[in-house]
Amino acid sequence: MTDLSSTERTRHRRFSEKGRTDRAALHEVLRAGFVCHLGVVVDGVPMVVPTVYGFDVDHLYVHGSVASRSMTGGGPTGRRPTAEMGTVCVTVTHVDGLVLARSVFEHGVNYRSAMIYSEPRRLEGEEKLEGLRILTEQAAPGQWDYARRPSRKELAATTVLAIPLAEASVKVSSGPPDDGDGPDAELGLWAGVLPLATTWLPPVPDPLLPEGTALPGHIAGRAGTPLT
Amino acid sequence: MTDLSSTERTRHRRFSEKGRTDRAALHEVLRAGFVCHLGVVVDGVPMVVPTVYGFDVDHLYVHGSVASRSMTGGGPTGRRPTAEMGTVCVTVTHVDGLVLARSVFEHGVNYRSAMIYSEPRRLEGEEKLEGLRILTEQAAPGQWDYARRPSRKELAATTVLAIPLAEASVKVSSGPPDDGDGPDAELGLWAGVLPLATTWLPPVPDPLLPEGTALPGHIAGRAGTPLT
Repeated sequence: MTDLSSTERTRHRRFSEKGRTDRAALHEVLRAGFVCHLGVVVDGVPMVVPTVYGFDVDHLYVHGSVASRSMTGGGPTGRRPTAEMGTVCVTVTHVDGLVLARSVFEHGVNYRSAMIYSEPRRLEGEEKLEGLRILTEQAAPGQWDYARRPSRKELAATTVLAIPLAEASVKVSSGPPDDGDGPDAELGLWAGVLPLATTWLPPVPDPLLPEGTALPGHIAGRAGTPLT
Repeated sequence: MTDLSSTERTRHRRFSEKGRTDRAALHEVLRAGFVCHLGVVVDGVPMVVPTVYGFDVDHLYVHGSVASRSMTGGGPTGRRPTAEMGTVCVTVTHVDGLVLARSVFEHGVNYRSAMIYSEPRRLEGEEKLEGLRILTEQAAPGQWDYARRPSRKELAATTVLAIPLAEASVKVSSGPPDDGDGPDAELGLWAGVLPLATTWLPPVPDPLLPEGTALPGHIAGRAGTPLT
C-alpha cells in the first residue's frame, strides 16, 4: 500500500482527523459511486462539470464529446491538445447523513470524499476502448458484454481522458455530533444523525421495448441494493 | 420570471435540448439538495470542494472556516480579501438514474444539475447571520429555531459567502434511452432506466444523549421521505 503524495494542495489544513492518504481508502471512495465533479480552468475561470467515471489501480477515467470544453480546456477541438488543459481537480463525494448537534455551529455532514489533482492524458486506440470499458462497467456492470460496443465512428466522437491517481486526498466524516460532552449537552436538546441512503429502484423498461424482452440478471439483480 | 443571462460560458453547446434557463427551473434544482461542489481557482489550479449550501431568490450561500482556501481563494486569511477570489463555479447535481441503452454509446445518466458562475461577496453582521440561517434551514429545516444559535466567537470563525444567481444554467435529462427506434432496436436487447432514490433513514440518537430526550417532530418527520 503506497501512500498517495501529500502536497501543499492536498494537505488537510482544516480537519486533519478527517484526512486519509492511503490508496486503499481512495479506491474505497471511488468504488462507491459513478459520478464525479470534474474541475477545469477555462480562460482563468473554474468550470465544474458532473460526469461519470471509472477507475483502475492508478487512473481515473472520464469521457465526453470531443467538442466539450471540459475535455479540451476550452480550446477549439483539434487545435488545443489536451496536454494544455493543465491540472484538473476531480472530486467524488458521497453524502451519508446529516449531523444534528445541540448547536448550529456543530451541525455538519457525514460524508466520504476524494479529491484528485492531476494532468489528464487523452487516450487513443486500444487504451481508449479499455478506458470506455472501465467507465461503462463502473456505472453499469455487465453492460460492456451485453450491449453493442462502440463503433469506429462513435469512438471518434468520444474523448477519453486518463487521470493519474498520483496526488489525492480522502476525507471521511462519520459518527455522532461532537458536542455531547460539552456545555451544550446541558440544553437537553435531541442530537444525533439523520442518515441518507441511496438505493437502486426496480428497472423501468423502455416503452419501445417489444413485449417479452428478457430482463438480464445483471440488471434485475441491482434493484433494492444500495449504491454506496 | 426573469430568464437567467445566457453567456458564452453557460450556453449549452452539447445538449441544448437539456438546457433550461429560467429561474424557476434553477430554484427547483437548488431546492432538491443541500450539498454543492464549489469550484475556485487557487494559484491557477482548479479546486473542487463539496460543501453545504442554502439559497433565496437571488443568492446561493456557502460557508466555511475563515482559514479555508475555498473561502479565500488561497490567500492567507485577512490578507487577501474575498473580492479577489474572482469568479467561482458552483455546481449542484442530482443523479436520478442510469440509462441503459442497446448500445454502450447511448448509455447515460438521468440527472438534474445547475451550474452557477458568479463573484462571491463575503457577508458580515446581520446578513451573515441570515445567510447561516438559510444554509441551516436548507439542510436541516427546523434546526435554526431548535438548536443553539451561533455565538459571537463562532460567527467570527465562520466565513459566509453570498453568490449571486445571475449567470446560471440548468440541465435536466430524463426518460428512456434514445435508441429504441433506431437500428439497434433490432438487437433484441433489454433497455430502460435503473432509477436511483435517495431517502432519509430513521434518526440515530447520539449515544451520549440522556435517556428520555424527546425526538422533535421536525426531525422525526423526515424518516422515510425522499431527499429530492
